[in-house]
Amino acid sequence: MAKTTEKPSKQRRPKAETPKGFRDYLGSEVTARKAMLDKIAAVYHRYGFDPLETSAVETVEALGKFLPDVDRPNEGVFAWEEDKDWLALRYDLTAPLARVAAQYRNDLPSPYRRYAMGPVWRNEKPGPGRFRQFYQCDADTVGAASVAADAEICAMLADALEAVGIERRDYVVKVNNRKVLNGVMEVAGILDPSDPSKFEAERGIVLRAIDKLDRLGVEGVRALLGEGRKDESGDFTKGARLGVAEQTVLMQFVDASRLIDERLKQMQETAGDESPELRTLAVGAQLRGNLRFRSILGTLPGWDELRNKVTIQILRDIVRASPSGLEGVAELEEIATLLDAQGYGPDRIVIDPSVVRGLGYYTGPVFEAELTFEITDEKGRPRQFGSVAGGGRYDDLVKRFTGQTVPATGVSIGVDRLLAALAAKGHGAKADPGPVVVTVMDRDRMADYQAMVGTLRAAGIRAEVYLGNPKNFGNQLKYADKRNSPVAIIQGADEAARGMVQVKDLILGAKIAASASHEEWKSQPAQYEVPLADLVATVRKILDAG
Amino acid sequence: MAKTTEKPSKQRRPKAETPKGFRDYLGSEVTARKAMLDKIAAVYHRYGFDPLETSAVETVEALGKFLPDVDRPNEGVFAWEEDKDWLALRYDLTAPLARVAAQYRNDLPSPYRRYAMGPVWRNEKPGPGRFRQFYQCDADTVGAASVAADAEICAMLADALEAVGIERRDYVVKVNNRKVLNGVMEVAGILDPSDPSKFEAERGIVLRAIDKLDRLGVEGVRALLGEGRKDESGDFTKGARLGVAEQTVLMQFVDASRLIDERLKQMQETAGDESPELRTLAVGAQLRGNLRFRSILGTLPGWDELRNKVTIQILRDIVRASPSGLEGVAELEEIATLLDAQGYGPDRIVIDPSVVRGLGYYTGPVFEAELTFEITDEKGRPRQFGSVAGGGRYDDLVKRFTGQTVPATGVSIGVDRLLAALAAKGHGAKADPGPVVVTVMDRDRMADYQAMVGTLRAAGIRAEVYLGNPKNFGNQLKYADKRNSPVAIIQGADEAARGMVQVKDLILGAKIAASASHEEWKSQPAQYEVPLADLVATVRKILDAG
Repeated sequence: MAKTTEKPSKQRRPKAETPKGFRDYLGSEVTARKAMLDKIAAVYHRYGFDPLETSAVETVEALGKFLPDVDRPNEGVFAWEEDKDWLALRYDLTAPLARVAAQYRNDLPSPYRRYAMGPVWRNEKPGPGRFRQFYQCDADTVGAASVAADAEICAMLADALEAVGIERRDYVVKVNNRKVLNGVMEVAGILDPSDPSKFEAERGIVLRAIDKLDRLGVEGVRALLGEGRKDESGDFTKGARLGVAEQTVLMQFVDASRLIDERLKQMQETAGDESPELRTLAVGAQLRGNLRFRSILGTLPGWDELRNKVTIQILRDIVRASPSGLEGVAELEEIATLLDAQGYGPDRIVIDPSVVRGLGYYTGPVFEAELTFEITDEKGRPRQFGSVAGGGRYDDLVKRFTGQTVPATGVSIGVDRLLAALAAKGHGAKADPGPVVVTVMDRDRMADYQAMVGTLRAAGIRAEVYLGNPKNFGNQLKYADKRNSPVAIIQGADEAARGMVQVKDLILGAKIAASASHEEWKSQPAQYEVPLADLVATVRKILDAG
Repeated sequence: MAKTTEKPSKQRRPKAETPKGFRDYLGSEVTARKAMLDKIAAVYHRYGFDPLETSAVETVEALGKFLPDVDRPNEGVFAWEEDKDWLALRYDLTAPLARVAAQYRNDLPSPYRRYAMGPVWRNEKPGPGRFRQFYQCDADTVGAASVAADAEICAMLADALEAVGIERRDYVVKVNNRKVLNGVMEVAGILDPSDPSKFEAERGIVLRAIDKLDRLGVEGVRALLGEGRKDESGDFTKGARLGVAEQTVLMQFVDASRLIDERLKQMQETAGDESPELRTLAVGAQLRGNLRFRSILGTLPGWDELRNKVTIQILRDIVRASPSGLEGVAELEEIATLLDAQGYGPDRIVIDPSVVRGLGYYTGPVFEAELTFEITDEKGRPRQFGSVAGGGRYDDLVKRFTGQTVPATGVSIGVDRLLAALAAKGHGAKADPGPVVVTVMDRDRMADYQAMVGTLRAAGIRAEVYLGNPKNFGNQLKYADKRNSPVAIIQGADEAARGMVQVKDLILGAKIAASASHEEWKSQPAQYEVPLADLVATVRKILDAG
């Protein structure tokens, strides 16, 4: 068939679509997020943190990291040229904080504790559940060099998670220290403290490999330390091409967890629960973040007290030849001690050397909050929920502006991830209770209907008059249904003359419709007539019962 | 003198600055705005409106109005090209609503009542108090053709203003109707209903002139109807170049207010307060929004009841030859009647033909909330605070996407203006109460100090330990002062050994420092020692008294 020639179209209509990778939030999606952020803000505030809201737009120069090339800035941010300056949407809340800390350094209190909540933008390829605009919720302390500041952030993160409804033992805040990782690198011969730029590429590959240990397994990591690794799809990832000696040291660190895991399984079958050896080995399982075992071992007497202590010992052994590594272990020990003193024991805050954190700017302690309950993934397999927050110490970020090192530490909560976790635990967005709908029987008596909603609202009851075309009364009830309304009010000329209104209990009506026979439904016991003067009292009774 | 040659600089440090026209909000600036928006949201919610949060980024195509030219879109928005699409930051919350109403038209309830709060961006020349990112706070009803929807918006706006702390008689919601304005244009011969594109430029000039009546005066407006007007700086604004007959009709409308004003002044000196003529003329003063008179006349018996009725009569007289003008007057009358039935009388909602509203897309009723109390302007002169919110009916905005007319009406509150108004009325941002500061006397006993703040926080008291360098104790007290702290806690080795803490009442201390002599101050009655176990009770007592 010949293709029909398109007629020259009239002026083309614009598409009603969000840009690719962006989305809208409607109704309870907005209120659920707001309720969660309000609870977190209350915790941050109680810890002495002050709110800060920077503008969404920054100069590319101030944002850093992404510098303009000839034509336009690097990928990763949304940027544009404006009066010869490159501007960009912020990609996180930390870069603007560094700018603020430098800009107002003479006016801000020091240390400066601040929290910030708001959208950030990433110019990345969108995917399922991955959007180009999303919320972050950060708290940072600028100007405090002491690890007491890091400990405080960890405690506050635990409090924030509990405040929004994540129960204790359903989460764990894992703490590591970049200095410990660097110590391991040093011992393995791929970090030279006198020339940090040496082996930079190799260390990057090693860090990324350790970060993916859960997914790649020990053999995958070993391959990435050597020549490289071909994944299932056949794609090849280049390895660090380390010598045999270097690989051996690193694999000792990586592999320790696996060996302990295996021996642990044997022990469980043979040793008594109280065995000190079992406890020690259980720590190894913890090293891998293997929380399946943790849930069993967490019930052993003395286990909680022992865990972080034994981890510290093991780490100290591994990095003993590296002074900065030992410094990192000492910092971890101090964090654990400070938190213990405040009642944040290893049931909530765990030292875990597998925590790497992607960002290059961390210089000391790093943290990650992981939810330990199981959910079912898209393929129906059970898996742990995983990470919902992360952060750490970054002592060089403000230096970019001022030339002076300013110690800083902080945490960022992934708002959408945490909301998803709450939904998975049944604390998610509930459909917002809809308004009482006053229907319109006589178009000419709109003023009467408006007066009714006015009375209801004055009593604090969410209420509205139907404002669509009132001709078809069925549409009005369909509308009330779509709004999830608890009550519909009906007043025709007849009721009006007698000073009465019909009150239709839609909550009860829905229950009857779902359970009772058609005959019972037809008798409509969920609708009755009351004097207009009793309107508020009647509606309130239904709302309280519903 | 010879200019010294600059040395080739080392790598230049980035400037720690917001981009031109952008700003940061710190501490109580954030909490004050949030508190105000929460109160407004509660009112919107009670009226049955649902929250909506769209993405900050839209396609330029969906935003409309600003279409891309060859190189980049028109001025007014921040826009950039992305994968061959032009994207832009939203410049208001109405354009995204129109897109949402079209995109989800099959799923949204109809009518769809929604509220939205958030930043918008304008690529305009920044000025004092004028920023390129600012908050809007909107409520709109989409899909309701009835003026009952407009009336509801007006009532809700009044409730919202009172909810945030603007008292009755300190504000007025002015209502006009574009159809009335068009009726006047029609009568004046510069609007031909059968060919609306005719005289479009002339009408634009006339509308802008009427909108500026307060500033230009009657003669200024008259000049703009004719050849044009030269302002004080010598700049010439081209006029509408209307014929004498057209000018006469329009000036009759514009000038009526002035004549009535003048006669009113005479009447005030000669006539009794109860004179019906005085009342009628007072309406004329109201027409001009001359609220100096209103405050006198508002106390006359019967005045409130009369005002909107008489205004309606006068308007009906002016547009009697225009059917659409008469339709507009009838709509105004219906709005006033509906609002009266709900108790929103002309003490709060006033029909005022001087309201024009800039945006071209309004098609029916237009509203403006004006604050009527006086403030002192930057030159020390008293002036009325002025407009804080505006809106109206726009029946063609969704049509751009779907081809079908969708009636819509709504209002937008200028968040920064309203916050400034609250500040002017003394309800502004108060310095946030700072945290209790636990000072650090012995660096080694950080765990003890952390335990103290832990106890205070667990009791719901905002508290923190000093995390800066503790060496200089004076700095710790200066920090507490900068944080606006109510209490400082001090515990040295001596107190610790005895299980005691020093509690320093900084609120009382500041009062003493401000009023008492140096000798009295030195006796420090605002600091005392209590057992550690009484810490929470002692602090709470100070907070309750402060």
